[in-house]
Amino acid sequence: MDRSPRRIPSRLARRSLSLGVDIGGTKVAAGVVNAEGVVIDRAQRATPATDAAAVEETIVALVHEFSAAHRILSVGIGAAGWMDLSGSTVLFSPHLAWRNEPLRATLEARLGRRILVVNDADAAGWGEYRFGAGRHVSRLACITLGTGIGGSLVRDGQLERGEFGLAGEFGHQVIMPEGHRCECGNRGCWEQYASGNALGREARGLARAASPLAHRLLAAAGGDPEVITGALVTALAVDGDPASRELLEDMGRWLGIGLANLSAALDPGRFVIGGGLSAAGDLLLEPARHAFARHLTGRGFRPVAPIVAATLGADAGLVGAADLARVSARSRR
Amino acid sequence: MDRSPRRIPSRLARRSLSLGVDIGGTKVAAGVVNAEGVVIDRAQRATPATDAAAVEETIVALVHEFSAAHRILSVGIGAAGWMDLSGSTVLFSPHLAWRNEPLRATLEARLGRRILVVNDADAAGWGEYRFGAGRHVSRLACITLGTGIGGSLVRDGQLERGEFGLAGEFGHQVIMPEGHRCECGNRGCWEQYASGNALGREARGLARAASPLAHRLLAAAGGDPEVITGALVTALAVDGDPASRELLEDMGRWLGIGLANLSAALDPGRFVIGGGLSAAGDLLLEPARHAFARHLTGRGFRPVAPIVAATLGADAGLVGAADLARVSARSRR
Repeated sequence: MDRSPRRIPSRLARRSLSLGVDIGGTKVAAGVVNAEGVVIDRAQRATPATDAAAVEETIVALVHEFSAAHRILSVGIGAAGWMDLSGSTVLFSPHLAWRNEPLRATLEARLGRRILVVNDADAAGWGEYRFGAGRHVSRLACITLGTGIGGSLVRDGQLERGEFGLAGEFGHQVIMPEGHRCECGNRGCWEQYASGNALGREARGLARAASPLAHRLLAAAGGDPEVITGALVTALAVDGDPASRELLEDMGRWLGIGLANLSAALDPGRFVIGGGLSAAGDLLLEPARHAFARHLTGRGFRPVAPIVAATLGADAGLVGAADLARVSARSRR
Repeated sequence: MDRSPRRIPSRLARRSLSLGVDIGGTKVAAGVVNAEGVVIDRAQRATPATDAAAVEETIVALVHEFSAAHRILSVGIGAAGWMDLSGSTVLFSPHLAWRNEPLRATLEARLGRRILVVNDADAAGWGEYRFGAGRHVSRLACITLGTGIGGSLVRDGQLERGEFGLAGEFGHQVIMPEGHRCECGNRGCWEQYASGNALGREARGLARAASPLAHRLLAAAGGDPEVITGALVTALAVDGDPASRELLEDMGRWLGIGLANLSAALDPGRFVIGGGLSAAGDLLLEPARHAFARHLTGRGFRPVAPIVAATLGADAGLVGAADLARVSARSRR
């Protein structure tokens, strides 16, 4: 474990340390977070989220390790699943194996302490709201562009969870009737057009077609179109590959159309775009802003919500989960 | 004016009478509403909403008339426009001529009293939440199916207006990229597929094609396809015309897909469907429920929000506007 604090926490902050755990697709990341959102200790384990038992073991081990080294007052876990309103059950996960998984009870029984379990995108959005690019906005929408699209809403300083705990699943809005099949069971979900999976699919298609455009993509993939991922496209685009930049531009357009739909329904004051694909920066966000402005209903007669990049990077989820656990613990006292 | 009350109001209710005014496309309706949401007096004037000056005259006349006959403590106006957050300016109206119209200040200056101006769909949704099919729901989404789609959200007993006052414009979500042109400037907005305008357009297309299916529609329209409206299709469907029922079924499917999108983003506990087209009842709502269940992301692992018909009928807007004005006046005291 890296014990070097990013900066010296105040004595007050030390007194309210919270552990945040972020369960990603291939790894579990954990961090000790102080009241100012600073990660003062961290660890990461390679654990595939498809193996629920291994994830559970990893979480238990991390909580024990950090509890031995710090005075941890609260523990928050961000999981890529749909939590029920009480936060006790992972109802469903489009990308993982959980179905009605009583994650919180399982962990609390093993750890003998209270645990907060939240949707990973809600955790990341909360992190950006409290300490990142979403501060001081009364209606904030956060989009996490990873394998799929994660979403969260903060309204008047509170996460908006919906009637059943499932608000913010923006990625599963049907945006193209009879479009690409989505893991959720629908066709044409937004995340089939604006996500890492979508970017990889389009790039593989381009490479398979042996288009002259795709030569750098193919070279970077060792000649095998099938190993091209969204992350590779993003990296090549940042490195100047014209084809990868075109693919990001296409995806940015879909991103902007979906954001305009969210403005029609929700009218947020700001959009914060995070997740791995946000590493593309303005290569993605500029086309998104253009398409957003072009598809915003009432344009010309309304304020235009800014679309900005997240600032917490890969820490957003664990920082947000830790802070939500801290807030929840405080409200119980 | 019809002075016969629907039922005898209590003395308490008499003391807090509020006037609600609903500005429709072709008429202005007003009603004196007591604290229990009962309309105890009402009037209607044929005034085209495209004539902003005439609408203003009508409102002023109605407020004067009712104020002479009742002790009106508050006045609320529902207008088919997008209000800024302060409720002072109609920023834009997709179907009417208002552009940055300072409606409230104009009316307050002429009437010498405070006026509340709200979006007509917000007024209708609030009416259903307080006194109709949306009572006791913590996250309520109301859809008004008229010429277009009006929408409103009630969250924890408050209208959700968004950061700039423009939340709930569900009808302008792009649901079909490059689809039908919308008055808002976009293509493929939901209301181009699920509204009175959409129903009329599809029926006129069917009738123009001289399809044998369309013979009753054409007969009812005196042989002229161009005079067929959504209201006519709705009436013929209720009367048993198979073609009109097919058209409503198609529209119900689009309605359900759009509602599933709203569940993905907002996760409401109930959908209330009002407006003129809701007269079709289950001819519209059953196909909508079917499509909703088929397109709800996470289906099988989540509660399914009921889709129910509004119960206040054409009064929803004026009852809701009156009640919002009453609540607003009370909060100032």
